[in-house]
Amino acid sequence: SLPEPDAQASDLARARDAQLTKPPGALGRLEDLAIWYAGWRGQPRPRLDRPQVVIFAGNHGVVAQGVSAFPPEVTVQMVANFQSGGAAINQLARCFGATLSVVALDLDRPTADFTLAPAMTEADCAAALSAGWQAVDPQADLLVVGEMGIGNTTSAAALACALMGGAPADWVGRGTGLDDAGVARKARVVAAGLGRHHVAARPFEALRCLGGRELAAMTGAIARARTLRIPVLLDGFICTAAAAVLHCARPGALDHCLAGHVSQEPGHARLLERLGKAPLLSLGLRLGEGSGAALAIGIVQGAVACHSGMATFAEAGVAGA
Amino acid sequence: SLPEPDAQASDLARARDAQLTKPPGALGRLEDLAIWYAGWRGQPRPRLDRPQVVIFAGNHGVVAQGVSAFPPEVTVQMVANFQSGGAAINQLARCFGATLSVVALDLDRPTADFTLAPAMTEADCAAALSAGWQAVDPQADLLVVGEMGIGNTTSAAALACALMGGAPADWVGRGTGLDDAGVARKARVVAAGLGRHHVAARPFEALRCLGGRELAAMTGAIARARTLRIPVLLDGFICTAAAAVLHCARPGALDHCLAGHVSQEPGHARLLERLGKAPLLSLGLRLGEGSGAALAIGIVQGAVACHSGMATFAEAGVAGA
Repeated sequence: SLPEPDAQASDLARARDAQLTKPPGALGRLEDLAIWYAGWRGQPRPRLDRPQVVIFAGNHGVVAQGVSAFPPEVTVQMVANFQSGGAAINQLARCFGATLSVVALDLDRPTADFTLAPAMTEADCAAALSAGWQAVDPQADLLVVGEMGIGNTTSAAALACALMGGAPADWVGRGTGLDDAGVARKARVVAAGLGRHHVAARPFEALRCLGGRELAAMTGAIARARTLRIPVLLDGFICTAAAAVLHCARPGALDHCLAGHVSQEPGHARLLERLGKAPLLSLGLRLGEGSGAALAIGIVQGAVACHSGMATFAEAGVAGA
Repeated sequence: SLPEPDAQASDLARARDAQLTKPPGALGRLEDLAIWYAGWRGQPRPRLDRPQVVIFAGNHGVVAQGVSAFPPEVTVQMVANFQSGGAAINQLARCFGATLSVVALDLDRPTADFTLAPAMTEADCAAALSAGWQAVDPQADLLVVGEMGIGNTTSAAALACALMGGAPADWVGRGTGLDDAGVARKARVVAAGLGRHHVAARPFEALRCLGGRELAAMTGAIARARTLRIPVLLDGFICTAAAAVLHCARPGALDHCLAGHVSQEPGHARLLERLGKAPLLSLGLRLGEGSGAALAIGIVQGAVACHSGMATFAEAGVAGA
């Protein structure tokens, strides 16, 4: 069975929150965040010192269908950019004191075009899940998983549609910058994938047939974080689609996850709603790389800092209401 | 005339943004934030190293009307809490690397009850404006002004109503925790103040008659920041009401300000809409102390870090769309 938050730590954190020098509830969602974090960490007055960001990169055979505004060689070029510190996520990770690692998954061996065959063999999918599982630092106290993979909003849309139902058009968007014709083509590609693979009610089979290595790796990392009781901030549409595999396999499997932000990719808000997750930020990002979730690290740090650092009414000699 | 952003720096920042290794627009509001910041700082590739938070505290004669859930001695007790590091704003300022100073404004001499007399004499109001003006560090590169003052949501509601029109009920809320009867009483108190003082179209006179020392100090600090081209993050309802004095005195006077967050106090969203400011955060905070704006410092830091730190497509050898 999956680890659950420590109820005693949550209760003690809630009791502490009620004694802090502020009107009850005046820190809004920061209070819920701190109590949630305390429960998962098993500490009534937790610290948040070691946030970890991991970026997984993969290539997608489905780009042959013309579903991306960028050429597929950008995946490996961006991995080099991550490694040399030049991408957005490098700046954001540094800004919030997070470690950053990059895991490139067989970039010279794209997945199969899912309109023609399962994206991954069982062995490939298992290897990607395992790569994600292994990438989590057991000493981390907050995890962000991000991705890079030209074509992967198409895989995420197909996966979300398979997991959650609805029409392909509900789940496709502009990705890195498709025009209207490109979006319509993307919806047809998703429909073709769903028509070929019969994955209903088999979330991991949907991941294997329609997803990609970086999606499977994110699924594996998020599952691993649960076993370690490391809270997770979900990033955008692709990350959330990867997480949704776990939710569909087992309701409650994402209780250790919060939505760091809601992206401009229209399927993301829909997917978060289906998962019952209210995003912390809504700033119109649609970059991936874990960028929206990394930005939300600062919010969780602020929440934990207030909870664990503030004086109580008694300590400060402040009169209550 | 007021300083304006440096158009050349804005243009160069916009040109740089278009070359960074991301799809155009993919960082959403972070891109606009960075360009706005670059313009005000006059630097196409700015740094953000010295954020400053200043908290102003004042006491309010109008508390005699029973408009607060907390007793007035809490103002001075909370000032001591700020000074000893125990309040929410202490934790948030530390979290985002901001300096924090606290300016207590004649706490043993509350303003007059505005239902009976102008809250401040002209000399008192001028002294408070000046205290705010002086409190801004000319070396700061981002400013948050916050407040503490039992009763001051009532002053802010009266001020907002005088500046923006509408009914008192449009501008009053629960403050630190009033019940329905308390909110209704607060609306009557605001109506009484507006009935007594004839301040229409005289924003600084509205501030003097209905505001308070900490509000006037915030007004002065925000005006001073403009002369120094220091960008400002507005906090909650009280801070925004103080800022609105400048807007009403001169449209455009708040172009160097962004709304750090929208609070749970219902008048705040209304006031931000009237000022044309879309908040960066919406997390249900209603604490004051500059807390919501301090949390948003992290967002601006992230935006500036991405803008100034990312590689261009050419530098990184990444193919464009």
